[in-house]
Formats: sequence, C-alpha cells, structure tokens
Amino acid sequence: MSRQNGRQLHLNAFLMSVGHHEAAWRLPESDPHAHVDIDYFVELARTAERGKLDSIFFADSPVLMGDPGRRPGGKLEPTVILTAVAVQTSRIGLIATASTSYNDPYNLARRFASVDWVSKGRAGWNIVTTAGADAARNFGLDDTPDHRLRYEKAAEFVEVSTKLWDSWSDDAVIADKTLGIHADAEKVRKIDHHGEFFKIDGPLNVPRSPQGYPLLVQAGSSEDGKDFAARYAEAVFTAQQTLEDALAFYTDLKERTRAVGRDPDSVKILPGIVPVIGDTEQEARALDAELARLISPEYAHRQLAERFDLPLAALDLDSELPADLPSEDEIEGAKSRFTLIVNLARRERLTVRELIARLGGGRGHRTFAGTPVQVADTIEDWFARGAADGFNIMPAVLPSGLERFVDQVVPILQERGLFRTEYTETTLRGHYGLARPVNQFDAAGALVTAR
Amino acid sequence: MSRQNGRQLHLNAFLMSVGHHEAAWRLPESDPHAHVDIDYFVELARTAERGKLDSIFFADSPVLMGDPGRRPGGKLEPTVILTAVAVQTSRIGLIATASTSYNDPYNLARRFASVDWVSKGRAGWNIVTTAGADAARNFGLDDTPDHRLRYEKAAEFVEVSTKLWDSWSDDAVIADKTLGIHADAEKVRKIDHHGEFFKIDGPLNVPRSPQGYPLLVQAGSSEDGKDFAARYAEAVFTAQQTLEDALAFYTDLKERTRAVGRDPDSVKILPGIVPVIGDTEQEARALDAELARLISPEYAHRQLAERFDLPLAALDLDSELPADLPSEDEIEGAKSRFTLIVNLARRERLTVRELIARLGGGRGHRTFAGTPVQVADTIEDWFARGAADGFNIMPAVLPSGLERFVDQVVPILQERGLFRTEYTETTLRGHYGLARPVNQFDAAGALVTAR
Repeated sequence: MSRQNGRQLHLNAFLMSVGHHEAAWRLPESDPHAHVDIDYFVELARTAERGKLDSIFFADSPVLMGDPGRRPGGKLEPTVILTAVAVQTSRIGLIATASTSYNDPYNLARRFASVDWVSKGRAGWNIVTTAGADAARNFGLDDTPDHRLRYEKAAEFVEVSTKLWDSWSDDAVIADKTLGIHADAEKVRKIDHHGEFFKIDGPLNVPRSPQGYPLLVQAGSSEDGKDFAARYAEAVFTAQQTLEDALAFYTDLKERTRAVGRDPDSVKILPGIVPVIGDTEQEARALDAELARLISPEYAHRQLAERFDLPLAALDLDSELPADLPSEDEIEGAKSRFTLIVNLARRERLTVRELIARLGGGRGHRTFAGTPVQVADTIEDWFARGAADGFNIMPAVLPSGLERFVDQVVPILQERGLFRTEYTETTLRGHYGLARPVNQFDAAGALVTAR
Repeated sequence: MSRQNGRQLHLNAFLMSVGHHEAAWRLPESDPHAHVDIDYFVELARTAERGKLDSIFFADSPVLMGDPGRRPGGKLEPTVILTAVAVQTSRIGLIATASTSYNDPYNLARRFASVDWVSKGRAGWNIVTTAGADAARNFGLDDTPDHRLRYEKAAEFVEVSTKLWDSWSDDAVIADKTLGIHADAEKVRKIDHHGEFFKIDGPLNVPRSPQGYPLLVQAGSSEDGKDFAARYAEAVFTAQQTLEDALAFYTDLKERTRAVGRDPDSVKILPGIVPVIGDTEQEARALDAELARLISPEYAHRQLAERFDLPLAALDLDSELPADLPSEDEIEGAKSRFTLIVNLARRERLTVRELIARLGGGRGHRTFAGTPVQVADTIEDWFARGAADGFNIMPAVLPSGLERFVDQVVPILQERGLFRTEYTETTLRGHYGLARPVNQFDAAGALVTAR
C-alpha cells in the first residue's frame, strides 16, 4: 500500500550523452562517440520505459557548449532525437528543450506538433529563453537580449504557439470522400496574431495533435522564471540543494500558480537529483571520488570564473569564494543557478577546489551518493514532506546510472506504493496526471459556434 | 546487359501523402488521415527501398497550402518524417525541402547534420526560397521578398551552411580517455561569417556528419533557379512536359554547371513523371479519367486564376487561356512553372477545363498513363536521348502507384541493365554516384595545418 495515501511520484530521466558528470566520458564503460549515436539514445529511452518512468528529457542550446577539447562537444538536435526514439518506443514521454529567442514560432510549433503526432501524444517542450552571448552570435546578434525582455518574448512565443496549435479544432477533419470535403474549413482558422514580437497569420499547417499540444515544461528558477512557470508550465525542473530550499521553492511556485488563477496541481515540480548509486555506501562514494579525480580542474576553474564574471586569478583554488561577488541582478542568465552555487559554497564553507568537485556531477543540481535504499529514502523523504511532486533523475554516468536507478531504485519505490508498476496512460500528460488542454477557440465559442 | 553502356538511371520517389493527384484521397484505397500517420510514410519508404530507389523526397512550405476543405490539409514537418523513416530503413536516401527564407542557418544546418548522423549518411536538403505572401505572413512579413533577393539570400544561406558543416574537421574527435582530450580543439573552428544577410560565429554544435553534409538538391527552373543549381546543386528536380524541353533544360543546366567550373556529372538532373500505371493501356486511362472526374473544378479553377493573377471571371472553363496573360517576369515565384503551364495549354490548345484535368495529377509535371512496359519505355527513351540522368517518380495515387512502379516498372528497368538490382553504396551521395565533399577548411589548409 502507498505510504503517501496513494499520491504518486513522477520521474523524469534527464539524459546527457554519457552522463551529467563532466568526466563521465573518461570512464571505461563510456562510448566517447555516444553523443552522435542515435541507437545509444534509443537504448537509454528503452531502459527508462522499462522502468515505467514518466518521461525522458534532452536539454539544448543552439551553440557549441563548453570546450570540445575537454568533453564530447555538440549534440544531435533534440527534436530529431525525440522523433527517432518516438518510433522505437511506445509509452515513455519525450521532452526536449527549444529556445524562444532563436526560433520562429511557426516552425517550432509545427515541429512539436509533428513530434506529438509521431509519438502518438508523448511530446513535451522545455521552454527556455537561452542566455549567453555565444548563442546570440550564432543568430546575427552581438549579445544576449536582456533577461526581462527574453521572458516577455517567451510569453508571447508561448501564447502564439498555443493559438497555432488550436487553429484546427479537434473535430475539423471530416474526410467525406463522397462529398469531396476533407475538413470543415470553418474549424481551421487564421489566428491573425499581431503582437509586440510576432506577427503571424496562421493557421498552422498541421492538424491539432493527439495531446492538443506538447506538455509545456519550464526550468528557470529566477523571479521572471517562476512567474513564467506559474502562468504557463505544466512541469518544472529545478535545482535545489537542500530540503529547506526545495520546500520554499515548491510552496512559492504553487502559490504563484494559484495567484494567476490556475490549479496548483496542474504544475508538477521536479527537483533534480544526481544519484551516484553503489551496492554499498562505500562503493557509491568511491565512484563519486573517481569521477571527481577525472575532472580537469583548470577547465572547471575557468568555467566557474566565467560564471562569476571574475578574472581567473581572483578565484584561488584552495580558498573559499571571495567575499565581493557580483549580485544575482548583475548576472545575465542562469541567475538562480548562480545564487544556488554561491549559497552552497558559503553554507558548507567549500574551497573553490571542493566546489568544483561538487559541481562536476550536477552543475548545481543535488548530488546524492548512496545505496539504492538510501536513494529511494531521500526521494520519499522530499516527496512526503511536500518538497516535490517527483524528481528529475540526472544520472552522473550513462548508461549504468540509469540502469541502476531503473533496476534497483524503481522497484523499491514501487514496493512502497509510490510509483506505478505499469503505465496506465498512453500520453505524456496522462503519465503526469494532467488534463488534455481544451482548444481556446472552441472553448471561447468563437468562429466554430458562430456558424 | 545495359543498353546504355552501363550508364545507370537514378530514381527518386516524390511522396505526397496519398498521391500527387489532388483527388487521390477520394479513392477507396486512400486513408484520408495518412498525412499525419508516420507509420504510413515508413511503409512507403520501405516500398521504395524494396525497389532499390536512390531516394524518397518530401516537399514542404511553412504555410497551410490549398483549401483544407478540399484535400488533406497540412503535413508533418518533413525532417521529422525523414528521422522517423531513417531509423526504420537502412539504405534509401532521404530528402526534404526546407526554406532559406524562413529558417535560421544555424538551426537548419544543425538539423540536417543531425538527420545525416541518424540516417548514417542518407540526408538530402532540397533548397527552396519559398514564394507566396501567405508563407511570408507566418513570419512577420507582409509579402514575399523579391525573387532575386530571395535567391541572393539562398546563396549566402548555403555558403554559411557549408561553413558550419565544415567547422569540424572529419578527424577532429580524438577521444583520448587517458589524457582527457576529447577533440583536437584546433580542428573545431569558429567561422566568423559576416555576410549581407547572416552574421554567424559558429562553430556548429554537431561534429561533421557521415556525408560531410546533406546532398544539396534544387528544384526551381527559373533563370535565377538554374544559376543557383549550377553553383550549388548536386541533384535537380524539374518539371518538363516534352522531350524537347527536357533536352534543352538538360543541356542548358549542364552547360551552366561547366561554366562555373564544376564537373557537369556532379549535377544529376531528374525530370518529374507522374506515372498512372495499368495492366493494360485501357486500364491506365480509365484510372486517369476516374481521377479527373473526382477533381473539384471550382477549387482548381480558383487556384489557376490565382496562379495567373487573374479574376476568376477572366478564365472561362470551356475556352482556351486568354491571350493577354501576365509575363513570367511579372509573376512572383514558381516562375518556370507558370511558363510551362501556359506553353502546355497553348501547344495543345486546351480549354481551361482540360488544362485543370491535366494539372490535377502533377501540378505541371508530366503525366504518363500506360502499362509498365510503356512507362519503362518512356523513361529509357528520355534517358537514352540525354534528357535526364534519372527521374523524379511522382505517383498520382499512393500507396498503390509506388507499389506498381516498384513491382512492375523497376524489374523491367533492371532487366534492361538500366537500374541497380542491389544497393552497392550506403549513403545518399553514394547512390547518386557523387563524391563526399572535401572539408573546405582542411582543403584550404587553414587553421589545421597552421599548428
């Protein structure tokens, strides 16, 4: 029986080529060419599906991230990965990041609608605004647009996308061969959107997809990010190092959701966890230490200095962080992650070298090294205390980290009645217990009932 | 033995949901929901692969084309279709249209590189500039940019795309786990492109793909289109109604290719043919007539008037075309198709009603109704006379039109020694007998040899 009165956990696997740990590719098990091998990703997805997970997720940015000399550089475009996975799995949900700053709504809305068709209702879109001048410089700009402006544009992007997805009524297609009428043309509408950032006539050139539109996911935890999530997100990925912080975030976001008139249950909050799993606690800690040993400290040192907007010399490896760091307001992008890292270092009085080791695995997400039971315990603990609706599982090393989670942790959660033993639904929204969105034009009784 | 001294035909299947004929969806065999059913497209691709065809092709435009009341409206985004097909086939080449007017080079170059990785070297890009104000109005514009300007932008788009694809040397990835070096960072280059239309720093965030980059295909036959093809295309789809026109086009394009310093053999020219195949000539003609009967003349009439930029009343259904049509210069987009249609109507003295019936099947491509032997004969005839390197097969009705071609026409071509009986290559360029492109930066000995 459930220990949470039947309340069910949601589990997403956040898949990063050979694992979230930056040195994972150097382990003997890792295939250093996996990041361009679609069969590898399909295998990971099948493992997640074997574990009855709600979904898998691929992050993205339209730029070559990091130093390709130091770790596998570049990745396949994630809607391409989702599509290849979609036709070789049947239940697992499929989420990918795409940027509202560097895409056209018409093209992106159409691509996600297409993936939703191909997956028969399993597509999800992680909406990001994309920070960083290097990405901007791949799109004709000199620098990244201002944080607030990016979020305003993102809001309009989502609004116009839902209009495009709703431009076909669900019952628009009649397909009457005798009369030669394929669709009821009045149920296929122009949207004539003339906004601040976008001017789009529509309709979309794809009929409304199985889920209506993809699950909307969000992952920024800045003030702008939380307001955005409250308005639009159905699932939220977040980095939280402590139970207290996670509780505060959960309460805050649910409250903001209620404040904009949405049911707080319609947003599922999933903190990240980087489980380093061993048969014994000692084995788990040994793997953790081995990964830390493989990090190139020069590279991580440079990355950290860039994040703090400091010269390299200002960050002594064997001292704590300097007292005079910039404030979150002065940082452009990844604002909440910046604050999380500073708080972590200060709270635990970590040297820069120690901080680097802590960040190597999860880039700010919570790393937890332990046995399967210990991992299940911490998941249940946060869930029971109301700090999470589920978790974003971020294996440090792949494929073994996912296999261990699926084969060793999931059965414990199932035994405790916290997690499904079989899929009961066929769509991504179904897995998360969310309702299919009503078509805004049909609901408003616009053109359709005006006939 | 070959009747053409071993010269081999190339065959592409141009797949349009339930067939190229606008009324195909009304036939008993047609699934009127096929246009959003990925399993249907995978099945078509497998049929083409069974026939050892070089490739399949999906056309596209980022707009809802035509009247969704009259025929299946909208389609899945074609790189999504290619990806789903890629992982469920092993040899067939995979070509899709994408617009240089309504995409960002960074995103599009990356997506095609990803499809090339996923398909293990079978991706092709049909480069189009996209005519039509309705498409423009989905991207913040009021009208379509000028024809010449679109082609100038397309040229820069292709140039910058090849730079992005070449931004990684083929041997950039070392993957030395012991040293912790993944790539030779000097073989991953910024491109720092500052052009008239695009400013892109790079490098691409995908390593160079199996083919180097996708096969470059082009399909516009205007003067600008032919010049563009001569500079960039490796395969050209073209609509030609008569052998004489096809010969003239072939000779002209090969000459233009030579004139810009390229080997004429490096461009394969494939006229379209809409084969309506029957066991007897009579059966073929009956199917052709049945399809013509199912066309909605009002709709086709309106479309034709729009193409000619005339009021509907100026086009009497039972008269020939009016004498005072606009010239090709005055038409914005689909220029060569406009001229082809006018010439066809004038040459054969067709009434508007007859013209509509002729265009219903192939929208200007050559329709040929006959037995398998007759279809094989006309293909061999054009090929032998030097009017084609192969053909763009455009079944009027799917899946039956493709099945008949593969099962009844291909064996005849194979018997005559004109077409492969087994694949001998694994990549799309391999099938077309084209060489893998050399990396422009390695070839120039730029940064790589400067070490």
